[in-house]
Amino acid sequence: MKLIENWFSERYSDNLQLSFRIRDQLLSIKTDYQRIDLFDTYDFGKLLSIDGTVQLTEKDEYIYHEMITMVPYYFNKKPESALIIGGGDGGAAKRLIDLNFRNIINVEIDENVVEVSKKYFPELSESFKNKNVNLIIGDGIKYINQTDKKFDRILIDSTDPVGSAEGLFSPDFYRDIKNHLTDDGIVVTQSGSPYYQPEALKMAVEGLSSVFKYVKTYIAFIPTYPSGFWSFTMASINGFNAREDEYIKGRYFNGNILKGCFDLPEFVKNVV
Amino acid sequence: MKLIENWFSERYSDNLQLSFRIRDQLLSIKTDYQRIDLFDTYDFGKLLSIDGTVQLTEKDEYIYHEMITMVPYYFNKKPESALIIGGGDGGAAKRLIDLNFRNIINVEIDENVVEVSKKYFPELSESFKNKNVNLIIGDGIKYINQTDKKFDRILIDSTDPVGSAEGLFSPDFYRDIKNHLTDDGIVVTQSGSPYYQPEALKMAVEGLSSVFKYVKTYIAFIPTYPSGFWSFTMASINGFNAREDEYIKGRYFNGNILKGCFDLPEFVKNVV
Repeated sequence: MKLIENWFSERYSDNLQLSFRIRDQLLSIKTDYQRIDLFDTYDFGKLLSIDGTVQLTEKDEYIYHEMITMVPYYFNKKPESALIIGGGDGGAAKRLIDLNFRNIINVEIDENVVEVSKKYFPELSESFKNKNVNLIIGDGIKYINQTDKKFDRILIDSTDPVGSAEGLFSPDFYRDIKNHLTDDGIVVTQSGSPYYQPEALKMAVEGLSSVFKYVKTYIAFIPTYPSGFWSFTMASINGFNAREDEYIKGRYFNGNILKGCFDLPEFVKNVV
Repeated sequence: MKLIENWFSERYSDNLQLSFRIRDQLLSIKTDYQRIDLFDTYDFGKLLSIDGTVQLTEKDEYIYHEMITMVPYYFNKKPESALIIGGGDGGAAKRLIDLNFRNIINVEIDENVVEVSKKYFPELSESFKNKNVNLIIGDGIKYINQTDKKFDRILIDSTDPVGSAEGLFSPDFYRDIKNHLTDDGIVVTQSGSPYYQPEALKMAVEGLSSVFKYVKTYIAFIPTYPSGFWSFTMASINGFNAREDEYIKGRYFNGNILKGCFDLPEFVKNVV
């Protein structure tokens, strides 16, 4: 008989929380940028939390990572180069490798995220060993200002727009991004829960729209994120032309999702 | 300073729960069929729970009720008559009235659900006062065996397939349903969370497929239901032909959702 139960709870507001029963807390560190916790949960395997919010779990990370990489992949000329800002777990880089990107630069500000992922999510962080991936520990905003490279895809795989990630949702940053996209390039950012964080989605859409002519929001279901419902917003200089490729199936993504993910509920349309 | 906090938690498994902070518990009764609890929550207004699972909240009931009524509405000949099995809160009947159904029979097994809704969700239960709605307190399975009426739409607006609602997911029941649909008729059932309850979805799809030639599953995001992701499955004798009507917008439903809700993630396709 187990007398003590341990739970990790993410508070969605003062009045709502999702709780995961855990076998153990494996790590809790305070870095220069954030607090990082690692839990071994019963239902979702290992869970990485940053500042108390779920970033990824072993069981459902595939949804977020497929959707941030595969949806923009199938538009415009077949992409080969990518810049990932954030994504220190390696999950986004992993999917880009699977999609045959040749040249991936991943700029993560907090090397502790990389170290934690190497230890606890080796199947994701192994992407940093790939010869086509160049991991840089540094500030994405500074990096984009200094480099003269251009990219076919830029992924903003960040935490929510509070604290250290706030600058990643600003028009100034989006302007710098634009200067480092190829003509056919696409930038994509996670843009929060349309239900609980409509202001994050609004920031992304309005910021990107002030810089880019073409902006599109798409949605996915992610059970361990607030409300189970998440948004991504992508932008481009010259539009979005769907390629006629055979679609690679993910565990979430498929050819139907590529169409249906742009069909937004009315309450989301009212935000974007 | 508030020293005591009260929370209502729905357990999704032994290891996962969503918790709502509540101002007060307004009701807790044990009926012949189930336990009914009514909470006044901070974030979602009044919340009706049956056997510990959230049935509806003031704030997000519109999503479930729009999706169970409006999606099947836009296929085949314009429907006028409907049978609702379950739905004692009145929310489904309310949307059918808005869609100009002329003849609605609502069979609810537990009159306590109706009484609770009359007291706490008057904007839903007022539909039972409408001249086009006939509320019958009784067993839906018995009702369908006794009536000789046929309906353009049959809505199975039930709890999950455990306990008293289990029979509402059985092939025998679906066969009776088929005999009481008009030629152009459509039956729709809620079919659970594809993520946490794939067996409920499987029961509905396999049961309906054993009786009907045409079966289609669609999805919606519902923040207060397990995983935030829900499925509905509809079936018909002669297929689904989309009408070219102007779409009435709901707060969730719109013309895009009518297309996109049938685009299923790969892990859901693997269930249905």
